[in-house]
Amino acid sequence: MNDMTIESKAAPPRETVESWLSAFNKAVAAYDVDTAARLFATTSFWRDLLAFTWNIKTVENQNGVHDMLRDTLPHLGRVSLTLAEEPTQSGDVVEAWLSLETGIGRGEGHLRLRNGEAWTLLTTLTELKGFEEPTGTRRPMGAEHGISRNRRTWKEKREDEASTLGFTTQPYVLIIGGGQGGIALGARLRQLGVPHIVIDKHDNPGDQWRKRYKSLCLHDPVWYDHLPYIDFPKNWPVFAPKDKIGDWLEFYTKVMEINYWTKTVAKHAAFDEDTKTWRVTVDRDGQEIELCPTQLVLATGMSGKANIPGFKGMERFKGEQQHSSQHPGPDAYAGKKVVVIGSNNSAHDICAALWEVDADVTMVQRSSTHIVRSDSLMEVGLGDLYSERAVANGVTTRKADMIFASLPYRIMHEFQIPIYDKIKERDADFYAALEKAGFMLDFGSDGSGLFLKYLRRGSGYYIDVGACELVINGGIKLKSGVEIEEITETGVKFVDGSELPADLIVYATGYGSMNGWAADLISQEVADKVGKVWGLGSDTPKDPGPWEGEQRNMWKPTQQENLWFHGGNLHQSRHYSLYLALQLKARMEGLSTPVYGLQESHHLR
Amino acid sequence: MNDMTIESKAAPPRETVESWLSAFNKAVAAYDVDTAARLFATTSFWRDLLAFTWNIKTVENQNGVHDMLRDTLPHLGRVSLTLAEEPTQSGDVVEAWLSLETGIGRGEGHLRLRNGEAWTLLTTLTELKGFEEPTGTRRPMGAEHGISRNRRTWKEKREDEASTLGFTTQPYVLIIGGGQGGIALGARLRQLGVPHIVIDKHDNPGDQWRKRYKSLCLHDPVWYDHLPYIDFPKNWPVFAPKDKIGDWLEFYTKVMEINYWTKTVAKHAAFDEDTKTWRVTVDRDGQEIELCPTQLVLATGMSGKANIPGFKGMERFKGEQQHSSQHPGPDAYAGKKVVVIGSNNSAHDICAALWEVDADVTMVQRSSTHIVRSDSLMEVGLGDLYSERAVANGVTTRKADMIFASLPYRIMHEFQIPIYDKIKERDADFYAALEKAGFMLDFGSDGSGLFLKYLRRGSGYYIDVGACELVINGGIKLKSGVEIEEITETGVKFVDGSELPADLIVYATGYGSMNGWAADLISQEVADKVGKVWGLGSDTPKDPGPWEGEQRNMWKPTQQENLWFHGGNLHQSRHYSLYLALQLKARMEGLSTPVYGLQESHHLR
Repeated sequence: MNDMTIESKAAPPRETVESWLSAFNKAVAAYDVDTAARLFATTSFWRDLLAFTWNIKTVENQNGVHDMLRDTLPHLGRVSLTLAEEPTQSGDVVEAWLSLETGIGRGEGHLRLRNGEAWTLLTTLTELKGFEEPTGTRRPMGAEHGISRNRRTWKEKREDEASTLGFTTQPYVLIIGGGQGGIALGARLRQLGVPHIVIDKHDNPGDQWRKRYKSLCLHDPVWYDHLPYIDFPKNWPVFAPKDKIGDWLEFYTKVMEINYWTKTVAKHAAFDEDTKTWRVTVDRDGQEIELCPTQLVLATGMSGKANIPGFKGMERFKGEQQHSSQHPGPDAYAGKKVVVIGSNNSAHDICAALWEVDADVTMVQRSSTHIVRSDSLMEVGLGDLYSERAVANGVTTRKADMIFASLPYRIMHEFQIPIYDKIKERDADFYAALEKAGFMLDFGSDGSGLFLKYLRRGSGYYIDVGACELVINGGIKLKSGVEIEEITETGVKFVDGSELPADLIVYATGYGSMNGWAADLISQEVADKVGKVWGLGSDTPKDPGPWEGEQRNMWKPTQQENLWFHGGNLHQSRHYSLYLALQLKARMEGLSTPVYGLQESHHLR
Repeated sequence: MNDMTIESKAAPPRETVESWLSAFNKAVAAYDVDTAARLFATTSFWRDLLAFTWNIKTVENQNGVHDMLRDTLPHLGRVSLTLAEEPTQSGDVVEAWLSLETGIGRGEGHLRLRNGEAWTLLTTLTELKGFEEPTGTRRPMGAEHGISRNRRTWKEKREDEASTLGFTTQPYVLIIGGGQGGIALGARLRQLGVPHIVIDKHDNPGDQWRKRYKSLCLHDPVWYDHLPYIDFPKNWPVFAPKDKIGDWLEFYTKVMEINYWTKTVAKHAAFDEDTKTWRVTVDRDGQEIELCPTQLVLATGMSGKANIPGFKGMERFKGEQQHSSQHPGPDAYAGKKVVVIGSNNSAHDICAALWEVDADVTMVQRSSTHIVRSDSLMEVGLGDLYSERAVANGVTTRKADMIFASLPYRIMHEFQIPIYDKIKERDADFYAALEKAGFMLDFGSDGSGLFLKYLRRGSGYYIDVGACELVINGGIKLKSGVEIEEITETGVKFVDGSELPADLIVYATGYGSMNGWAADLISQEVADKVGKVWGLGSDTPKDPGPWEGEQRNMWKPTQQENLWFHGGNLHQSRHYSLYLALQLKARMEGLSTPVYGLQESHHLR
């Protein structure tokens, strides 16, 4: 996918790409939408991150391209796509990295041609003309050379801002939730000069990680996890322990000068249709404050709102019950009987940690789970894009993000299925042993594995870092494939009449759709107007259709004016925070931001 | 100096270099020291950072090379220098970047050939075989995959270390002083697995900067200031305000997992000749603790120990007196009469800040000062090595450090004089105006300007960021060229009979030699044994001979076993901390480290 070999100027790939680009640029300059559309293959995908659509949008095939260009070109000024690097060819596909410029801004692109026709095109807006970030040659001087009376130092200005913003001046953007999502977005807004406040209920930035269970480490490797602007150093662990990530986030928040209110909870928000601003009541360490931001971002996270199923009898259980997000780690439960309901990442991690302190722990598996061994995922699944090997091959994290973004969701499973076929073969003995232990396995409804499960439903998998061995050898007991009848005073009773006694029940039962947060904070009406957040509309389990082609409601305009959703893993927080920040900046500056193809809302939860 | 043009394989520079390297490698393999020495020009310089000498040492000319190789080769195992990049030619000088390998370790080198003979050679040791740092492909996994009972988390291990190191276990290295020097060294020792404690008197890492005067910003630009492992981000100011650097250092300390004791002062240290360890009594926030490190590093800084001249009558002054390092900034002195004695960096900064709050401020210049405008220094003096332009040309900070290190101190002035000639011409009107105001100027005793003044004496200059304009226009009053007679009850009296009334006298009179710290902490005997710290022995003002050719006693073995000095600006703290850390690591691991050419001690202060 990323052959760095430099071809000579006369080689076909460059000619092919230049010829296509020239025809494309000529057609769009002439507003000749028909011709432009015919440069795309019959089956083709154009994914645009803001550059044309002020939206995150994939259009398909010639008619999709036609309609999109017809509606967007009139607003864009002069558009050009140019070659940024020597193109490469692999099989019948020619790949090219592009630079993009429109009247509004600059960006990057990626093109795959087949038989001279565009098969996939990615276009991204990465900076707004006139509002470029102050980095590199544009970085601030810091010291104000020259002389002036009563100058304010950097520290005094920061203190001034901290004491006035939210009181005598209002943030343009309020971000609710200060995990990696809110922090990455806050950093970008600071760089773009957008007044912002990030609020979070915890005592310190990073506590979102620190307060989770003791043995938690990131399941994604370091190359996948960088935040904007400051990469993790070369000595950073592949899978960082939670407290180390917590320290990094705290450090990053301060160094990037994010306006971050700790110990702050949003109580209620309402949109004022007249002033087009929000009224948000927050409790900041006991003080009630009303904030009036223009834009409201919910960055409370996919893992924000706990989802606890309403089992019969829960109220009478005499032991301890907790959602996985509340689980404090194993130490208090040494020698105790614990039932963990659920069989995804958190369930496995919690069970393994409990086993380590010699608890008697049973995992209750209610439906099949996709399991992939961490080593295999790193080597087969991620290694080409996010690894030391990738970096050595010139695939920086930025480039990897762009390659990943260039794969249309409609056909991403086609790229993923062969990877998981390979993993199945590589780890055949492992999977057989799990099944022998009674564990119900799947690889996604179409065998496309982890990433698509994540993108479609954000759940249903475990990246194995050791717990599976315990399931196989019985260190973690497994109760699988039998429905729960009720919770009794002393444990969990199943429909087959069996009963598991428990001192502790952990509900590792996942999290609800983010619009549940909007319902709590704003109103059910607004939550319903927005509809379900996350998922592609793939019509696979927990990702009902119709097909949306992008993650529903994430990082892009919603049906509720000035309300945005942001979050995801560190990769997504890093990559998509840029596009969300640019959308907010453009609106603050009063630029025209006509949205093409605003998503409709589907499903109430 | 850094032409990145790729030449074809047949071009002369590569042939010239490869032929020289081949002859060199052959000669050293055969222990043929005579032949090896004859590969060097009659006037030539070989600077070695540990790789051959286990010292920081420059040898000169064929006989210097001969003697050094004669004594060092028997310890080194197989030695090879190989080409790392395509060489370049400029005039009659061919330059080449080298890779180096000995039986002990690996490193980098830089070679300049003239007429096929070595004119300058730099050799550096950057890693020890068998003790490579855990970075990149060797980075730690973080999560311990697999299952084990009673595992300790990262946080628990850190807490264990914090509670035992210095109590039930002893650090191998104790670093006194936790500014950028101690922090950079601490970070490198952590990576090398050397148990260490950094102690510092302040409440928090970074307070060394925060507690200085309010308007202080770094006078060196960001590209010159990176710490090891984590670069400042691309949005970092060119000249960072002191509080921002303070924040960075604080979080760097935490993220790099440096064992750092705040609020800790070393009271006394003594070397035990029998056990070859130190006994160091420290006061940690009121608790007296005895530490027994094997190695003791004084990183108290060039700017560590205040130097206040003993003017007659100081004790009777009724106003406030303070050393520049104690000056809290201008706010309390609005409208007051202030006399600042001194005319270097701190004096100028303090005067300008006082002017800003409308204090009546006079600078007392007792000897000539080298002034260079910040813009000119950046563009003419540093721009080829440390700037956005340099980075764009492929001169990373690492490469710039190596280029700078490759210039022998004996002839560095020859490279610097033309730069300052250019600056004099460029800023002729500015310098004329300063002289017209009565300001006494110099460009160093040989016209070689700022860097050599810094390397020779660490003082005697101001990088102008605005104060000179005030000296020129009288905003800062100047009293120049008249000796101080005495301090009176109400001000400063001069030998010409004039008197300056003062509410505040600031002694911006610099700092003493670092062996003064050794005298206070250990004994005058040890301080005298070590001799003066800093300076090259150039026999110019405040840098008495004889010629040493390297900075006296810095980052290398001293006459006092197991005592080391570390410090300097951010550039030096970054660059030389590597070599000091490797020397400490090698000793901890019991490697043979025969020191070639251990410096003699000169001058008691």
